[in-house]
Amino acid sequence: MATPVSTRSVKWEKDVEEAASALERPLLYKRGTNTTSQIAVVGANTCPIESLDYEFISAFVVYVGCNTTLAAAAAALCAYIAPAAAGSGIPEIFGSILGVSAGFVLGKEGPMVHTGACVASWLGQGGSRKYGLTWNWIRYFKNDLDRRDLITCGAAAGVAAAFRAPVGGVLFALEEVTSWWRSALLWRTFSTTAVVAMVLRGLINYCRGGHCGLFGKGGLIMFDLSSRQATYTATDLAAVILLGILGGLLGALFNFLIDRILRVYSLLNKKGARYKIILTVSIAVITSCCTFGLPWLTTCTPCPPELASKCPTIGRSGNFKNFQCPAGQYNALASLFFNTNDDAIRNLFSAGTDREFGVSTLLIFFTTVYTLGLLTYGVAVPSGLFIPVILAGASFGRLVGTLLGSISGLDAGLFALLGAASFLGGTMRMTVSVCVILLELTNDLHLLPLIMLVLLIAKSVADCFNKGVYEQMVRMKGLPYLEVHAEPCMRSLVAGDVVAGPLITFSSVERVSTIVHTLRHTGHNGFPVIEDPPFAPAPELCGLVLRSHLLVLLQGRIFTRDRVKTGPAEVFRRLAPFDFAKAGSGKGLKVEDLDLSEEEMDMFVDLHPVTNRSPYTVVENMSLAKAAVLFRGLGLRHMCVVPRTQGRPPVVGILTRHDFMPQYIRGLYPNTIPR
Amino acid sequence: MATPVSTRSVKWEKDVEEAASALERPLLYKRGTNTTSQIAVVGANTCPIESLDYEFISAFVVYVGCNTTLAAAAAALCAYIAPAAAGSGIPEIFGSILGVSAGFVLGKEGPMVHTGACVASWLGQGGSRKYGLTWNWIRYFKNDLDRRDLITCGAAAGVAAAFRAPVGGVLFALEEVTSWWRSALLWRTFSTTAVVAMVLRGLINYCRGGHCGLFGKGGLIMFDLSSRQATYTATDLAAVILLGILGGLLGALFNFLIDRILRVYSLLNKKGARYKIILTVSIAVITSCCTFGLPWLTTCTPCPPELASKCPTIGRSGNFKNFQCPAGQYNALASLFFNTNDDAIRNLFSAGTDREFGVSTLLIFFTTVYTLGLLTYGVAVPSGLFIPVILAGASFGRLVGTLLGSISGLDAGLFALLGAASFLGGTMRMTVSVCVILLELTNDLHLLPLIMLVLLIAKSVADCFNKGVYEQMVRMKGLPYLEVHAEPCMRSLVAGDVVAGPLITFSSVERVSTIVHTLRHTGHNGFPVIEDPPFAPAPELCGLVLRSHLLVLLQGRIFTRDRVKTGPAEVFRRLAPFDFAKAGSGKGLKVEDLDLSEEEMDMFVDLHPVTNRSPYTVVENMSLAKAAVLFRGLGLRHMCVVPRTQGRPPVVGILTRHDFMPQYIRGLYPNTIPR
Repeated sequence: MATPVSTRSVKWEKDVEEAASALERPLLYKRGTNTTSQIAVVGANTCPIESLDYEFISAFVVYVGCNTTLAAAAAALCAYIAPAAAGSGIPEIFGSILGVSAGFVLGKEGPMVHTGACVASWLGQGGSRKYGLTWNWIRYFKNDLDRRDLITCGAAAGVAAAFRAPVGGVLFALEEVTSWWRSALLWRTFSTTAVVAMVLRGLINYCRGGHCGLFGKGGLIMFDLSSRQATYTATDLAAVILLGILGGLLGALFNFLIDRILRVYSLLNKKGARYKIILTVSIAVITSCCTFGLPWLTTCTPCPPELASKCPTIGRSGNFKNFQCPAGQYNALASLFFNTNDDAIRNLFSAGTDREFGVSTLLIFFTTVYTLGLLTYGVAVPSGLFIPVILAGASFGRLVGTLLGSISGLDAGLFALLGAASFLGGTMRMTVSVCVILLELTNDLHLLPLIMLVLLIAKSVADCFNKGVYEQMVRMKGLPYLEVHAEPCMRSLVAGDVVAGPLITFSSVERVSTIVHTLRHTGHNGFPVIEDPPFAPAPELCGLVLRSHLLVLLQGRIFTRDRVKTGPAEVFRRLAPFDFAKAGSGKGLKVEDLDLSEEEMDMFVDLHPVTNRSPYTVVENMSLAKAAVLFRGLGLRHMCVVPRTQGRPPVVGILTRHDFMPQYIRGLYPNTIPR
Repeated sequence: MATPVSTRSVKWEKDVEEAASALERPLLYKRGTNTTSQIAVVGANTCPIESLDYEFISAFVVYVGCNTTLAAAAAALCAYIAPAAAGSGIPEIFGSILGVSAGFVLGKEGPMVHTGACVASWLGQGGSRKYGLTWNWIRYFKNDLDRRDLITCGAAAGVAAAFRAPVGGVLFALEEVTSWWRSALLWRTFSTTAVVAMVLRGLINYCRGGHCGLFGKGGLIMFDLSSRQATYTATDLAAVILLGILGGLLGALFNFLIDRILRVYSLLNKKGARYKIILTVSIAVITSCCTFGLPWLTTCTPCPPELASKCPTIGRSGNFKNFQCPAGQYNALASLFFNTNDDAIRNLFSAGTDREFGVSTLLIFFTTVYTLGLLTYGVAVPSGLFIPVILAGASFGRLVGTLLGSISGLDAGLFALLGAASFLGGTMRMTVSVCVILLELTNDLHLLPLIMLVLLIAKSVADCFNKGVYEQMVRMKGLPYLEVHAEPCMRSLVAGDVVAGPLITFSSVERVSTIVHTLRHTGHNGFPVIEDPPFAPAPELCGLVLRSHLLVLLQGRIFTRDRVKTGPAEVFRRLAPFDFAKAGSGKGLKVEDLDLSEEEMDMFVDLHPVTNRSPYTVVENMSLAKAAVLFRGLGLRHMCVVPRTQGRPPVVGILTRHDFMPQYIRGLYPNTIPR
């Protein structure tokens, strides 16, 4: 009596255990004494499916039911709660748990990075006063620089926790997360991930007793392959180079397809929460059908007799799944589909089992995972790309290794690892961090030269076609992300060309009504302040003032009837420096919150105390490309453009992030203007 | 007939082999038939030293002689050849080989990093035309940016080759070498070290036959400890924390002492090449005396009977050196001193040999290596600090481990590894790169959390006392290295405060004699160019011109009799863009090379074609701290200071690297000026 085994549905465990014990017994044990004719026994033995059809149908219904329920719950969490509850990271965690449980082809590392970043961002807001989760010292982090650093550390901690790869986490933060790298950050992310490693290590030690489920299995190294000794010949190298090229091509294709699919999904998701849930549930049903249906395509394989480990394994995650096969045999596809993602990867990486997975098995599994990975990413479930990519890459690598088995002497499991590296290189386009993460996952430094080679080739090949998947998504979402290199069209433009629209400036001692009116009717966040007579002989640039600081100053009502300087002493007597600290996202003062009387509106306010007196400036005939390097290199938000010749206003424009975005510049200047 | 064994002096090999075979024979074999009384035999057995005194003296003389000769040769190479032959890296290699052969406590990785950087710099100069080592494509690297990147890659390759640690090389470049990190650099250094790894791997494979001497021993991982399984308790953690604190203290002390010693040495070295050689030879004699004399202090230990490896080892590098001991016994101190540095480290790291080295042995060895490491660095031999620090740290760690043996259950070899990490953290103050280099040296990822912890603690402790050893040396040498953070005194200064001395500017079409005269009488490398009437209605900043470009332009003799623009067409008809490419160090045009007639001197030259029209500028009242961030963040060499108010010259000064050095600023402003 064979029963499909899903390790994901916990409530099934007892049934499964029964089934497992049933499986260790002879097949027809339940019938008590053997009253059936020998033909029937033989038939049941060779083709157990026919006689047990009804059990599989009910199992399938329950399996699909569980998965769709979990998927719907995850999607509901995302669709209804997460968009509003941005910043805590808790919906992410639950959504991710539900998503992984629902059997989706998705990873937990993306949500973990997001969670880490969310927790860090929350600390950078000074904690939460609403829930009483705040300490006095946290407010020292309440500025842009520290918050940015904290978020980087949070993301590093997420990677470190997801892959148990502390050094990989540091490098991921360096290679993918930060735009502005400071050497202090290296030391800070390292401290963070060191703590993560210690905590993980402690928890794994604690869980070794076995009372934490699957957590801690495999120790600190998730797929320990260290026993494998790699020696390779020139032919092997050629095979590895081929693998790198193919991985690069597959990665580039993956990026192309995911872009198209995400665009279609975003059209659907825009229609409302209900559509999000329908889409998610549909993908869940497709996934369940694939995982349940496809293993029927393969024939049963007898367990290898020399095997030390248990075969088939039932009722727990592992290798050699029985599925519909009789005792002593296993279903290769089920060994990959009916497992946690981690265990499927471990099975593919396993050495000395070259014949375990046949060419057809690997081809079916690779195609399914590649397609499902594409379809799943972008549904309303918190999901990561790393695990699907590793899974698809490992099956692809093992497939290539099996096909080249006669030429190359390398182990099929090693090919799986290199395939994962090549596909990661082809999609993510990261090098050092992927390399270190793979090393920390597998603990095999002997393979380092091969992994480096395959990553180099895959990235180089894929870079000929398109950009990395994360960069592509940032572009697709239209986030104002500045490229490292200035666009070629910027070289033939100057800063003065792109400062569009009328410039709004304030006088250094300005009328309250002017400020309030300006803040109400523009969305700008920074304004140049001009020192006018009588405070200077001729108008000159005093500095730059931020909207948020203006609001705090206005709220403090430090006004004068006449146009005179009040000086900083008066301001800081009434307002503490901390009042000007960066507010949490969406929690700052708004211009609508100001409640000023008619009389107050007619008074003056001295902007000197809140003006940044040393704004970064460029001359209007500065090459836009060089201005972009300055803007990005220093991580600015506003940059004043000053005139080249005398006798003009002291500031002719203000550059913001949007002025350096190619799409905006191209809109202004469809054809590059020759200068 | 026991003889001291030095693996370093190659010509001794034959004698050593004979001695070795003699040692495997019974002690009194040479005497033919045993005609001596039994008492004499017993005496020779228990105290071989007395009877063989004269042999040891001659051995000592030859040993010291060889070492001093090698040391003198290395010092001569450094003192006479290297200072002039800067840029090829070849004297470095030979000097390093001689230095290591001379038995100094120094590492080969420093010179290898230097060699890598030299080769890269040489490529960045477009190769060498003199020796015919140039290709046409190399000239594309002939600019500042690419040369800087190439040098970084070269340094990474050096580390990768020295430690067989490709990822460690990338991180070393990131953490220690570069001031300006660009994400492209990560990918470039990764490609470089990947090639290094492949080549290394290939050579090691080739050398496995044994015809490359010690090279390739240990494979790609120099100290493979991967078989060791680390489980640790809270007590072990406390021991490790103690180790980290002690390592930090020792590291800070090391940095303090090395600063003092280097200052004394530099006084000696200044006196001339002869003094350099004398100093080097003296240190070589001291080192030889220590390595030869100190092993006599320990008693002989019987070889552990359960040992699988050979004991004692003679005639080759390895563990359990016999020295003066009878057969079947070993001298623990000689096992550390009479070995290559690599093998000494391997012996200290070795697991399961807790009793091999006693407390006194480790204490003597640690003290000697610590002192010799301090004394050796700074003599006129190319030397690295990594190996001495690892050696001292490993012996210190093993010492602590042996002392804490009753409390902690951790292996003494593991303590040695952690000790090396803590001492590296305490002196170098690097975290991620040291961590990864240690991982790649030992291939034991299970230890990662402990290594990270010990590094964090050691660095934090040591940072309380002084700066990292490399930073300290950069300061001591007075190199104009800009700190990441602006000095506090800069916050109360503005850019206009530090632009000292009269400003030299050129007119956009300038008289040749003015330019030649200026270039002869100032050392400046950049000059602001002013657009004067009739080319502009009022004087305005046209841009910045470099000395090297001016010289090429003058050499090209594109002069006019009248003050008119010639335009770029005329210039680029006579001069190719490549003529302006960055020349190699010391190989560019000099003002003395110009041979202009009286008539030519009186003509005009149009500077527009060679002027950088978009120089980075700051306003004179910009905070100096913010100007420093801009200057360092973009890696500038010159920055124009423009006036704040109108009606003044269009540029009021030029800022260079020196203007941001604290020592210069402090010289100008002994007391911070309140503003």
